[in-house]
Amino acid sequence: MNEKNIEQLDQLVEILNSEILEFKTDNNNSVHPYDISEQLLKLRDIDEDEYSKMLKRIPSALLAEVLSEMPDIVQEEISDHISTKKIVAITSSMDTDDAADFIQNISEDNEELAQEILESFDDQDKEVLEQLISYSDDEAGAYMQTELFSARDDEKIGDAIKRLKDLKEIGEVDNIWHCHITGKRGEYIGSVGLEELIIFEHDMKFSDIPSEKLRNYKISHKADLKDVVEMVTNYNLSSLPVVDNRNRLIGRITSDDVYDIIQDSATEQIYNMAGVNDEAEQEESMYQIGKSRAIWLGVNLLTAIAASIVIGMFDATIQSLVALAVLMPIVASMGGNAGTQTLTVTVRQMALGDIENEDAKKTIIKEVIISLVNGLLFAGVIGVIAYLWFKLPLLGLVIAMSMVINLISAGFFGAVIPLTLQKLKIDPAIGSTVLLTTVTDVVGFFSFLGLATLILL
Amino acid sequence: MNEKNIEQLDQLVEILNSEILEFKTDNNNSVHPYDISEQLLKLRDIDEDEYSKMLKRIPSALLAEVLSEMPDIVQEEISDHISTKKIVAITSSMDTDDAADFIQNISEDNEELAQEILESFDDQDKEVLEQLISYSDDEAGAYMQTELFSARDDEKIGDAIKRLKDLKEIGEVDNIWHCHITGKRGEYIGSVGLEELIIFEHDMKFSDIPSEKLRNYKISHKADLKDVVEMVTNYNLSSLPVVDNRNRLIGRITSDDVYDIIQDSATEQIYNMAGVNDEAEQEESMYQIGKSRAIWLGVNLLTAIAASIVIGMFDATIQSLVALAVLMPIVASMGGNAGTQTLTVTVRQMALGDIENEDAKKTIIKEVIISLVNGLLFAGVIGVIAYLWFKLPLLGLVIAMSMVINLISAGFFGAVIPLTLQKLKIDPAIGSTVLLTTVTDVVGFFSFLGLATLILL
Repeated sequence: MNEKNIEQLDQLVEILNSEILEFKTDNNNSVHPYDISEQLLKLRDIDEDEYSKMLKRIPSALLAEVLSEMPDIVQEEISDHISTKKIVAITSSMDTDDAADFIQNISEDNEELAQEILESFDDQDKEVLEQLISYSDDEAGAYMQTELFSARDDEKIGDAIKRLKDLKEIGEVDNIWHCHITGKRGEYIGSVGLEELIIFEHDMKFSDIPSEKLRNYKISHKADLKDVVEMVTNYNLSSLPVVDNRNRLIGRITSDDVYDIIQDSATEQIYNMAGVNDEAEQEESMYQIGKSRAIWLGVNLLTAIAASIVIGMFDATIQSLVALAVLMPIVASMGGNAGTQTLTVTVRQMALGDIENEDAKKTIIKEVIISLVNGLLFAGVIGVIAYLWFKLPLLGLVIAMSMVINLISAGFFGAVIPLTLQKLKIDPAIGSTVLLTTVTDVVGFFSFLGLATLILL
Repeated sequence: MNEKNIEQLDQLVEILNSEILEFKTDNNNSVHPYDISEQLLKLRDIDEDEYSKMLKRIPSALLAEVLSEMPDIVQEEISDHISTKKIVAITSSMDTDDAADFIQNISEDNEELAQEILESFDDQDKEVLEQLISYSDDEAGAYMQTELFSARDDEKIGDAIKRLKDLKEIGEVDNIWHCHITGKRGEYIGSVGLEELIIFEHDMKFSDIPSEKLRNYKISHKADLKDVVEMVTNYNLSSLPVVDNRNRLIGRITSDDVYDIIQDSATEQIYNMAGVNDEAEQEESMYQIGKSRAIWLGVNLLTAIAASIVIGMFDATIQSLVALAVLMPIVASMGGNAGTQTLTVTVRQMALGDIENEDAKKTIIKEVIISLVNGLLFAGVIGVIAYLWFKLPLLGLVIAMSMVINLISAGFFGAVIPLTLQKLKIDPAIGSTVLLTTVTDVVGFFSFLGLATLILL
């Protein structure tokens, strides 16, 4: 460890110690758990022993909030650093959604410990946690928290507010913006904002609230995350009640969850288009990252070989005019680029809900027209360049013609591939780039070398 | 117009008419303005005359909310459909942030009308709107709204709540989750959630609220949007107070703005990496879209020609062994793909704040190691394939060696290019893909054909 690191280490330990002290004396921290988590991550980078000691020193209630902010990988290996007893204590002071994630992460490394933690909860909480863990990653339920503020419709507003006070005192709820109203059997009726509630008379019942003051957007726990994002962004919601199959209120998704969902799904999309797996990239092991990338490189190798086979069909042509070998990557590269432009716009607009199924034909026509015009433009440019370079007018004609053909096919397939994948219920971001460049490579090489064989020889 | 469209048209007009009627009778709409905006957009697609008539029929107060949900392009051309008087009425019932956007959009098409609308406001509102319009697109101020609920610290909680009731009755505020507390000169002190406020005694003063119940995250109106996103996502905030240079509270950014910011910046990033301009893509004119894409295609043409010049240097080598022309795109394509994987992960993680400047060296080393390992793997595979295909052992060796060289350089430049762009304060997403594939093409062709010249001839 160099001098700079030692100095940084001392500083970090000092800061963290004073934050722990502050928490212990006030049972309140002016520093946000996120900031502590960032400091701990730095400490972990510099000196794992000190990091381990520090984790032991942080009180469970604080560590619960801090750990909730930390990456999955840190949660997975937490049992290397602190005792099972402390892990159980931490889990029980987490919000249900954080606790479920935490247990799930622990089970990646240590299934037994995860089970032990679950068993430490009473039957009711255990059932809730098991339910939360059972949701798949792309279901609304996976992001919901069960802590919320609800009231029966025959309850008085004043009584509910008293209950909120109690709930807040024991630290059970946080970030409450609405009171969710349910009927006798727990069925969801509607939500009223605290900004309305604070104004109403306390002896009024919830059922007396005029219906235009209620909001009743809700989502099923099994709904796709895409629907969650669509609903909250279209209707500008700060939180969304989650109901089960029988319309009973079981949780809510809050704006901070939505931030994560939007960020994560954008990352997934960007990564998928580049042939990268977002989950594998979060691993610490380079072997895991490299392996997942190798799969797509392998697919790319196959498609590159397909393009080479096309070139191989024209080896005699190339032999008699090497200029063809010099120019042919230009046609393929321009096609790949134009196609990627179309593909990216189509995939993204589908994800944002701006292209619906009924717009498919319109999208394809639009993209083909744009690529036709750009194809003609660049056909002219490259035709002249090729002619000036090799002094062969017909070579200029051949490359110009193949440029138009390849750019049109780039626009067409750039739109058709993702639209078709979506129709087949396949994520249009995954693998579409590889499929597309296969097409533009094959069409590019075949049209250029084929036309050269016909016209030049 | 075909029969299906006529039927759809009639349906849409009927639905919209009944929604207008409902709004007029109750002065309240159970349908969200977003849904009406979607119906109007469909109507606009089918029959522009009917769309125009419908706009005239919708009351200004409702149209203000509906238009706020509609795309820029629709706002730009609104003066083709409704009178200036109605446009002025609409603008005055919008939230300030929506009004500022609306006026800005109108000014794209009709500077004079925009000015006329501005002049219709009283001096104070006009000043606020002009201030909002003056922010650049990537500043926090551009996304803030000035409508909020604030109180002086010497005010009684009960008085503030009464004021909230009045504000809500005249429809001045909405989505209120906090009361923002200011000092004598309007300086921002802190915010208290309504969930706390609803519990406190009404005769308590704001200055009596214990400090641990206050939150004091805030952001400068001139701050970069990236900082806004970082703050709200790290600290899980549903709204963020915005202050001016003198720490005076001037507005707030709410969760629905943050959804837009996150979505828009992800779209911008995905588009930029593919050589597409996100603003141009929103235009309706294919000419505008095509032109902006042509710029990047032009840059790509230059880089493709650079790669061709490299190939041209080895024309004699290719002439004597055409197999080289057949195989050379494989090396370039694999390099381009591996480099794009690295580039994408690096650009995205920088955007999410997961790679800081101090991590640059670590990132580069990690990426080079991963590409070295994958390079060795695919060198072996392609070496054997090339040998079996052309029965030339040395050709297998040459392609294997150049594969390793090109994949290492892909990993290295895939990380170095965005990191360097960021250091130079250039958006690392813009143009980095083109820069990268230039490198992988040139290195791929040069190493493969160069080694072939040395070893095979």
